[in-house]
Amino acid sequence: MNLGLIFVSEAVGTTLLLLLGCGVVANVALKGTKGNGGGFLLVNWGWGLAVFVGVLTSAYSGGHLNPAVTIGVAINNAATGGTVDFADIAVRILAQMLGAILGAVLCWLAYKQHFDEEPDPAAKLGVFATGPAIRSYGWNTVTEAIGTFVLVFAVISFKNFASIHDTTSGAFSLGNLAPLAVALIIVGIGASLGGPTGYAINPARDLGPRIAHAILPIKGKGSSDWSYAWVPIVGPLIGGALGGLLGVWLLPAAIIL
Amino acid sequence: MNLGLIFVSEAVGTTLLLLLGCGVVANVALKGTKGNGGGFLLVNWGWGLAVFVGVLTSAYSGGHLNPAVTIGVAINNAATGGTVDFADIAVRILAQMLGAILGAVLCWLAYKQHFDEEPDPAAKLGVFATGPAIRSYGWNTVTEAIGTFVLVFAVISFKNFASIHDTTSGAFSLGNLAPLAVALIIVGIGASLGGPTGYAINPARDLGPRIAHAILPIKGKGSSDWSYAWVPIVGPLIGGALGGLLGVWLLPAAIIL
Amino acid sequence: MNLGLIFVSEAVGTTLLLLLGCGVVANVALKGTKGNGGGFLLVNWGWGLAVFVGVLTSAYSGGHLNPAVTIGVAINNAATGGTVDFADIAVRILAQMLGAILGAVLCWLAYKQHFDEEPDPAAKLGVFATGPAIRSYGWNTVTEAIGTFVLVFAVISFKNFASIHDTTSGAFSLGNLAPLAVALIIVGIGASLGGPTGYAINPARDLGPRIAHAILPIKGKGSSDWSYAWVPIVGPLIGGALGGLLGVWLLPAAIIL
Amino acid sequence: MNLGLIFVSEAVGTTLLLLLGCGVVANVALKGTKGNGGGFLLVNWGWGLAVFVGVLTSAYSGGHLNPAVTIGVAINNAATGGTVDFADIAVRILAQMLGAILGAVLCWLAYKQHFDEEPDPAAKLGVFATGPAIRSYGWNTVTEAIGTFVLVFAVISFKNFASIHDTTSGAFSLGNLAPLAVALIIVGIGASLGGPTGYAINPARDLGPRIAHAILPIKGKGSSDWSYAWVPIVGPLIGGALGGLLGVWLLPAAIIL
Repeated sequence: MNLGLIFVSEAVGTTLLLLLGCGVVANVALKGTKGNGGGFLLVNWGWGLAVFVGVLTSAYSGGHLNPAVTIGVAINNAATGGTVDFADIAVRILAQMLGAILGAVLCWLAYKQHFDEEPDPAAKLGVFATGPAIRSYGWNTVTEAIGTFVLVFAVISFKNFASIHDTTSGAFSLGNLAPLAVALIIVGIGASLGGPTGYAINPARDLGPRIAHAILPIKGKGSSDWSYAWVPIVGPLIGGALGGLLGVWLLPAAIIL
Repeated sequence: MNLGLIFVSEAVGTTLLLLLGCGVVANVALKGTKGNGGGFLLVNWGWGLAVFVGVLTSAYSGGHLNPAVTIGVAINNAATGGTVDFADIAVRILAQMLGAILGAVLCWLAYKQHFDEEPDPAAKLGVFATGPAIRSYGWNTVTEAIGTFVLVFAVISFKNFASIHDTTSGAFSLGNLAPLAVALIIVGIGASLGGPTGYAINPARDLGPRIAHAILPIKGKGSSDWSYAWVPIVGPLIGGALGGLLGVWLLPAAIIL
Repeated sequence: MNLGLIFVSEAVGTTLLLLLGCGVVANVALKGTKGNGGGFLLVNWGWGLAVFVGVLTSAYSGGHLNPAVTIGVAINNAATGGTVDFADIAVRILAQMLGAILGAVLCWLAYKQHFDEEPDPAAKLGVFATGPAIRSYGWNTVTEAIGTFVLVFAVISFKNFASIHDTTSGAFSLGNLAPLAVALIIVGIGASLGGPTGYAINPARDLGPRIAHAILPIKGKGSSDWSYAWVPIVGPLIGGALGGLLGVWLLPAAIIL
Repeated sequence: MNLGLIFVSEAVGTTLLLLLGCGVVANVALKGTKGNGGGFLLVNWGWGLAVFVGVLTSAYSGGHLNPAVTIGVAINNAATGGTVDFADIAVRILAQMLGAILGAVLCWLAYKQHFDEEPDPAAKLGVFATGPAIRSYGWNTVTEAIGTFVLVFAVISFKNFASIHDTTSGAFSLGNLAPLAVALIIVGIGASLGGPTGYAINPARDLGPRIAHAILPIKGKGSSDWSYAWVPIVGPLIGGALGGLLGVWLLPAAIIL
């Protein structure tokens, strides 16, 4: 695999993920949009299908789009005897961060007039970055870690499920269903575990748009809430690492036996 | 198949099922969450995708996650001339019960602060265990039996449909679509038959979290409503057994003829 | 194919279709249910997944579950040079009618207490049979014909699409995706064309439950509205026949060229 | 490929797309319908499944149904060394326009009585053509261009993804999942980018029904808002062209390397 193409692939996929993901929040939250007040299920489907489009368009690099997934998969590879390619990891995370910033900027352009009309600075920040329903850094970190654990554990299960059952290469690899499977996993995690913190479950998804919020000349914007910014980084990294480790425990055992 | 791995697989899948399933109820019902009042369809998709993740991660054991499914499938096997493996059944049900308790505990941790803030003990219990809209043990049992009948009958139809049409082993077995098919069946049963009792349709799904509710130090919790606890055990077992028997009637006949 | 098994298959599938289809209306419309007031999209998904379960469990007979589909497919076969098997048609329609009645009876049992509590006779009838938002027999028939035309035209397109592209028999036949495809078509028709008449688009779906409503000892029931009963029979038969004829026009031409 | 059949295929698919797409807006917006006030997510699923039915029934021509897709794909072909068939492009766009007008007429017939009852001319126009939440031709064009870029870029990614991975022709081509994939992409774009302009993202989808609105004898209709009509033509053509160009950049490189 070519590191340059991996960079492009991850950056493109993460750009589309954040454009569509931040977009659905803008649609539900900002003043005067056609989807204003559209409900939590609309947000869940919006983010799930944002991942669908992101994974579909980053097939070359396997559609990680998330440092917690990249690190969780690397830990899983290492624990099952594979080698860890630090350059590959670094390139992916850099691309994910840049794509996340770019996607948030595009979302701001698409909803420019509604950002201008919205009077509440908190609603504007909410389009970019997550925030807790009840602020408590410890419990918020627990919630983010649990959600990301489910994501990484399920993604590794899908990959291993495919590799166990797949005796054929090419078009009919189970991997071809991956964009749909990951999208449904994201809708499910959002519906079920998004209540307390808004399910960042992805450090790039939260930090990238938060940087965009800080940089962009958004009319009437308030604080970027940097005091919370570490929670949706640390929680997902803990959860992703645990998902990578426990994903090892169950499924490779199934391959051996 | 290795009984130890079957145990792990069923326990892992049922843990994720209950974490995500109880999670969506917490999100809709507990005070101050981002999905509060999100509606019945949000609950239906949440439970359906909880099953999706559960079945995906328990592929080794075929993703039963439900004693009514395990028993219904065993009855179906027996009725079509197969042997019944009582150790396999016992291991699965034990794993399902332990997984259901563990999943409910994880849900409580993810929503810890919202449990603390919620003033209504009934709302807290509702996250863990089902309860009837109108209490009448007889009719409630009928509703649970009908819902579980549909589940087990449809699952057996899917398995037999796959075995009739499938001339190939390996990656392209129709069984690979099982996680999606079962998820959609669950969304459908929930939307259509969940109105009177909240569709337990699974003894482990109800009893496991009810035990967790009784044990956990939940702030301001009330009764675990043990007088109702037998209904979502007996109803699903009746429905699952009927589904296993009638699933025999139609489809193996189609194989023979 | 065995006519007896076709009868069983169509009856089973239509029973489950009406149990789940009437069920979601009961959940949304009857007093005190957990899904009360759940919205039109909940109804659309409920009916779509009712069709999913119905088609999945009637794979032996191809999952018609609808006299308008049976007749539309027969017209299509005749128009493309096939023979018409009148016994097969009669057996299917009889099974569909009996299944529709039985499914409605099961729905009444599942929601028995909520039928007893509901004070409005029109809400009770609405669980069983469709009725127009604005009564006008001519325009109501037009709406039902258009909706059924889309259904039959799309189903025939799917079948022909599969037969054009499918060079392989067995498990990977495109037909295996039929339950999902038909379910999505039904969700779409319901969302888009269900507004004026509640989309019967199936004579058995409306007449069978209407008969059940007339026969069952439903507490406080009112009229079965027989004056409207012909509309959801005649409209779908016109639309289904047109779908069968026009489905010939486009797609077999594509096979020849 | 036969140009006459391409014409028929594109016209049929676009007719069904607009019948179902305008239909869901009529259901949500017009007075007295059963789906009145059904919410933005209902509209998103309605349009997504309208595309599902449209693509399914226009498989012969690859289901473009959208001049921005036709032009974006042509640009992509040209940029990757293919030839541009101007007759093919012209035939498709003409068919898309005629189908869009016809579909809107059929929608008006299906909802005839509700158009008659609805007092607000703006609600009637909204069933046919899109309009901005906040009128600003420049920003509205930006929003439409971004949405259409995502559509064309994702569709080309899917086609190339399929061609990279697909070593087999026939029934199991990844292209067979195209109707579902495109439907989900449309649901996602609508949920996420539909807030400011109602996501025309297709010149035929907007102009065809606007012409129908101008021509049809709709009771109490108002202006067809021709001053806005160029925005959902120009924005999508810019976005589609960019999608065609940038779709070249990433994925054919992946084929070569």
